[in-house]
Amino acid sequence: MKSLYSLITVFFLSAFSLVNAQELKSPNGEITMSFSIEKNGVPTYQLSYKNQDVIKPSHLGLELKDDETSLMDDFEVIENKSSTFDESWTTVWGEENKIRNHYNELAVSLKQNKTDRIVLIRFRLFDEGLGFRYEFPSQKNLVYFTIKEEKTQFAMTGDHTAFWIPGDYDTQEYDYTESKLSEISEKFENAVTGNASQEQFSKTGVQTALMMKTAEGLYINLHEAALLDYSCMSLDLDDKNMVFESHLTPDVNGDKGYMQAPCNSPWRTIMVSDDARDILASRMTLNLNEPCAIEDTSWIKPVKYIGVWWEMITGKSSWSYTDDLPAIQLGVTDYSKVKPNKTHAANNTKVKRYIDFASENGFDGVLVEGWNEGWEDWFGKSKDYVFDFVTPYPDFNVEEIHNYAKSKGVKMIMHHETSGSTRNYERHMDKAYQFMKDNGYDAVKSGYVGNILPRGEHHYSQWIVNHYQYAIEKAAEYEVMVNAHEAVRPTGICRTYPNLIGNESARGTEFQAFGGSKPNHVTILPFTRLIGGPMDYTPGVFEMDISKLNPNNNSHVNSTIANQLALYVTMYSPLQMAADLPENYERFMDAFQFIKDVAIDWDKSVYLEAEPGYYLTIARKQKGSNNWFVGNVNGNNARTSSIKLDFLDKDKKYIATIYADAKNADYRTNPQAYTIKTKKVTSKSKLQLSSVAAGGYAISFKEVK
Amino acid sequence: MKSLYSLITVFFLSAFSLVNAQELKSPNGEITMSFSIEKNGVPTYQLSYKNQDVIKPSHLGLELKDDETSLMDDFEVIENKSSTFDESWTTVWGEENKIRNHYNELAVSLKQNKTDRIVLIRFRLFDEGLGFRYEFPSQKNLVYFTIKEEKTQFAMTGDHTAFWIPGDYDTQEYDYTESKLSEISEKFENAVTGNASQEQFSKTGVQTALMMKTAEGLYINLHEAALLDYSCMSLDLDDKNMVFESHLTPDVNGDKGYMQAPCNSPWRTIMVSDDARDILASRMTLNLNEPCAIEDTSWIKPVKYIGVWWEMITGKSSWSYTDDLPAIQLGVTDYSKVKPNKTHAANNTKVKRYIDFASENGFDGVLVEGWNEGWEDWFGKSKDYVFDFVTPYPDFNVEEIHNYAKSKGVKMIMHHETSGSTRNYERHMDKAYQFMKDNGYDAVKSGYVGNILPRGEHHYSQWIVNHYQYAIEKAAEYEVMVNAHEAVRPTGICRTYPNLIGNESARGTEFQAFGGSKPNHVTILPFTRLIGGPMDYTPGVFEMDISKLNPNNNSHVNSTIANQLALYVTMYSPLQMAADLPENYERFMDAFQFIKDVAIDWDKSVYLEAEPGYYLTIARKQKGSNNWFVGNVNGNNARTSSIKLDFLDKDKKYIATIYADAKNADYRTNPQAYTIKTKKVTSKSKLQLSSVAAGGYAISFKEVK
Repeated sequence: MKSLYSLITVFFLSAFSLVNAQELKSPNGEITMSFSIEKNGVPTYQLSYKNQDVIKPSHLGLELKDDETSLMDDFEVIENKSSTFDESWTTVWGEENKIRNHYNELAVSLKQNKTDRIVLIRFRLFDEGLGFRYEFPSQKNLVYFTIKEEKTQFAMTGDHTAFWIPGDYDTQEYDYTESKLSEISEKFENAVTGNASQEQFSKTGVQTALMMKTAEGLYINLHEAALLDYSCMSLDLDDKNMVFESHLTPDVNGDKGYMQAPCNSPWRTIMVSDDARDILASRMTLNLNEPCAIEDTSWIKPVKYIGVWWEMITGKSSWSYTDDLPAIQLGVTDYSKVKPNKTHAANNTKVKRYIDFASENGFDGVLVEGWNEGWEDWFGKSKDYVFDFVTPYPDFNVEEIHNYAKSKGVKMIMHHETSGSTRNYERHMDKAYQFMKDNGYDAVKSGYVGNILPRGEHHYSQWIVNHYQYAIEKAAEYEVMVNAHEAVRPTGICRTYPNLIGNESARGTEFQAFGGSKPNHVTILPFTRLIGGPMDYTPGVFEMDISKLNPNNNSHVNSTIANQLALYVTMYSPLQMAADLPENYERFMDAFQFIKDVAIDWDKSVYLEAEPGYYLTIARKQKGSNNWFVGNVNGNNARTSSIKLDFLDKDKKYIATIYADAKNADYRTNPQAYTIKTKKVTSKSKLQLSSVAAGGYAISFKEVK
Repeated sequence: MKSLYSLITVFFLSAFSLVNAQELKSPNGEITMSFSIEKNGVPTYQLSYKNQDVIKPSHLGLELKDDETSLMDDFEVIENKSSTFDESWTTVWGEENKIRNHYNELAVSLKQNKTDRIVLIRFRLFDEGLGFRYEFPSQKNLVYFTIKEEKTQFAMTGDHTAFWIPGDYDTQEYDYTESKLSEISEKFENAVTGNASQEQFSKTGVQTALMMKTAEGLYINLHEAALLDYSCMSLDLDDKNMVFESHLTPDVNGDKGYMQAPCNSPWRTIMVSDDARDILASRMTLNLNEPCAIEDTSWIKPVKYIGVWWEMITGKSSWSYTDDLPAIQLGVTDYSKVKPNKTHAANNTKVKRYIDFASENGFDGVLVEGWNEGWEDWFGKSKDYVFDFVTPYPDFNVEEIHNYAKSKGVKMIMHHETSGSTRNYERHMDKAYQFMKDNGYDAVKSGYVGNILPRGEHHYSQWIVNHYQYAIEKAAEYEVMVNAHEAVRPTGICRTYPNLIGNESARGTEFQAFGGSKPNHVTILPFTRLIGGPMDYTPGVFEMDISKLNPNNNSHVNSTIANQLALYVTMYSPLQMAADLPENYERFMDAFQFIKDVAIDWDKSVYLEAEPGYYLTIARKQKGSNNWFVGNVNGNNARTSSIKLDFLDKDKKYIATIYADAKNADYRTNPQAYTIKTKKVTSKSKLQLSSVAAGGYAISFKEVK
């Protein structure tokens, strides 16, 4: 891995006088961070934006296990180093092809007097916010240590409005609650909905990325960057004083991190702006990660795909092959002798139908879930050897499917559900990835549904965070792209490992078939989950009445078709699924045209309108093309969106195809009502479009030559 | 794997009347097992030998987690099946080349009335004892279950004398205590000596194999066979009633086993005889394991070896390369830039010296420990990524050593210390084994020193027992032989996987350099540790005063040279080390001749004299040869051993070379005093030889043609 420092273009080393307070300003001068040592030697920082307080004086430190002094107080500053960094780097895929990484840095070296231990806190201040981390240099008196708790504070200036989900060691698959900070505890219980694996720790515990808005109109976002071999951070709120404190995910023993110096924590990030669009436009999280560690990235390619998946999610079909066995044992159970259940979706005939549809409509890939032995008792049984990742069911012929897909110019996408059995997955990983390469698969969707094995570990503990990273790096060795579901939410690691092309790690579209998500869910996700990296949200559902697929499932998709189309633009991802069944698309081929047309990789993104929980409108320019696409998603109330098209090239003409909610559209009663209009436009044009609640619009702009 | 049942030569299916008590007799009729259902439906068995009670009525059952009924009572017998099995199988290596497997079997199917669950208890009665196990057939009402505790009782008939070590979840490396059962609790604390990882559970907890002797002169041995994917069993004594009950090793959550039917427990074994030699001669433990699972075993070969090891164990040299670093990070620490400590033993020059010595003296292999990066901070740091198993220190050139050894006709033996970090080992296992094959290594000594990772797991819990087995099976894929130290003690699995050529899992010779072991230690081990399989005991220490090697180590080896020689015969293993330094052997080349001559694989073994804790004398015939070897080890008191040589072929003449304690030998003050005499003998000869305390004798018999 190339060191970041070898790339530093400007570097100042200043011998500051070691005054008690040290100030750092963002490159544009609008944000100020101040660091000081409080009485008793407690490291403290504060943050302001355009002279308004954002973070009041907040303590920094770590409590260590079996260590009385810990790393909490008794510190003095022994050195301050400041520097400036400004460079651009080229993305492998992304919302733009070049990203500027521009910050001012302050590195404060602290000595703990009693122990002679050194801790360095590195602050990087960007125009849109602050990142900082703890660094533990190589030293005699601090080598191996166990973190009991990280004690990083984020002291709020008031009772802000927050878009939050419950702090949990195992899942982020919750609907967001919008409330005052002071209301979190009373709303907490209702915010916790059932999940395959979940454990909360506090009635004021929330997850990051946490999006807030102050009474004064400031937007504040708290998250972390570069979560590597460390436990995932949630936040616990002291709601008397409105102070958040870091809360790390414990391991089975209740410990929170095993460290060996030299090492460092992930970056803790605070974004702030008076314009919500700046939060979406920020590349801070990526910039705080190390540059790409993969030398040849030519095999990493964005993917638009369909899959044999939604019909299982809705309960129309099954992952499993038989209903006859109470339990199966891999390598022992003989599937050739059992009675097929006739609902098994991953069969040759059906998969070929999907391949045909993908090929006819220009999709890159077809995902097939439930192709491999083990789905009869895969969930909730604490099974160690639950899948082997290489043995297909009798009705799925890997070679036949591979050849058929190849003949149609379509790539198959592998599925590795682990059932949370991480040791078992690691044991089979080499063979599983090799099997993929042998059979023409370039990408894998992995899953961690249910409680983790080793038993008692959590999805977000250091041990398991380490596992996800192992899977990504091992996949890179095999030139395999990874889309990990139920893994820890991303923190910009895709900069370093761009083969991590997606994650779930939030409430995805599947919940629309499990009772539905809130109508404004997708107006929040870009401010929260997407801060860390792309999400495999699996949009594109056209049939909102799930009982049409499965009479026993009365769930309703809280969205209009126009809203579903817009998601391909608003929910940035290099991996985009068209989740619905081919037969549902065939009923609306004119609307489906947008999904066929929309790009999945971009030269540029422009954030036109944004208000978390209410609406957002984004324009993006297709990579290597002059085509643009715009998406608007709308919250709980109807709204008219007015946008200027000044992002378009000044000297060019475009045909805009506008997919919008029909006037009588209603996400509950008439979600399939949309209009499609075309219009000639230029950069001087303006558009005014109405979106219903949970509606939106999608526009494609094609250059007219 | 071939099913055992396909080989059954005689099979009776009897429709017994379902009377309450069911009797089973051993083939020779001397042992009787009786099974019955007690009031409340509790399954109960008892055992007698020549009409003397051995096991009084004892309960059988399992307590399940979160399951009120468990599998303890409310049972009725629904079917009894009895059968006889008698066949011989050929060993890959062993104490004899053919083993007879002869038993009568009773399979009792039990139904639990309230739950309609079925449990089958299978009893196999051999001439030398009983094996039984729980089997859980495939069924609707018992599929996945968690064992809270196994409740298998072994009710003793009195206050027997036992040779015991403290029950512990992490180590068996204790000296044995000889005491009455009633004295265990008072002697417990003294019996617990320091170890790198240890945790006891009860003051009356002891480990298996447990050797006992009754006041009436019966020898009783309790152990288990075929411990696979189950937690290791210790025994907890109710010392009021003299009833042992099974105590399984818990996982980090306190649970004791995750099961999925169909499945079974390991075999619980009870050997009994009025002649202690029958315990040594028994092949019950092997017979209760499945036949060999490896098709081509031609690559599995017994190994006599020396190693760069004893000089580190004694503290004369170091495993580590440098003393300069408080901590190292693999792949980050640059060893080419650190100051060597000059005590690092695994260097090219020294290793070549060992290779020369091995080659000159007919050894098959040379083990080198400390050859790879990471030894500076490998222990006690809870390091996850502690070794990579492929990167040598700068002064150890793998290729150069490989070529040198090859030119001398010697095989290098690999060393994989894991520091208990099992996930890390599994992650590197494929590359590590491949590295071995690429560099001419056929065998690996693996180690699990210190606390286990995942943290909180135990050396003997199901999760980690499963790991050891994974390592053995994975090694077999690479045609690698395994000698696992600090792993769970063996239970005859080497029948199924004969590439498991050794284990430590008891107090080995190394403790003679850590303060010494009891003088009679080696008279007990064959009755305890060796019941489950061979031990890499590493005998052959000639210099008993450890301060001669390391002035700072005043440990004394409690043994005479003659005793050390005898161990090559009495401590059966297909893997035998000559542990001492070449320079110590060079001082006693006449005695060393026995180590050079002694066989390590056998056609036949005859147990001439045996009394646990006191003495034993064993004769063995070299495989494919007419040569015999005899070993005698003696306990705490001097003794004269009288043996008949009627094991020798009737029609042949032999030259016996007798290595015996000199009259003035004393294991404390004069351990190197021995005599070597030769004598012509036949099968009619008798020998009378004196052994001092902790002494013994070794004899080689060469046919005179």
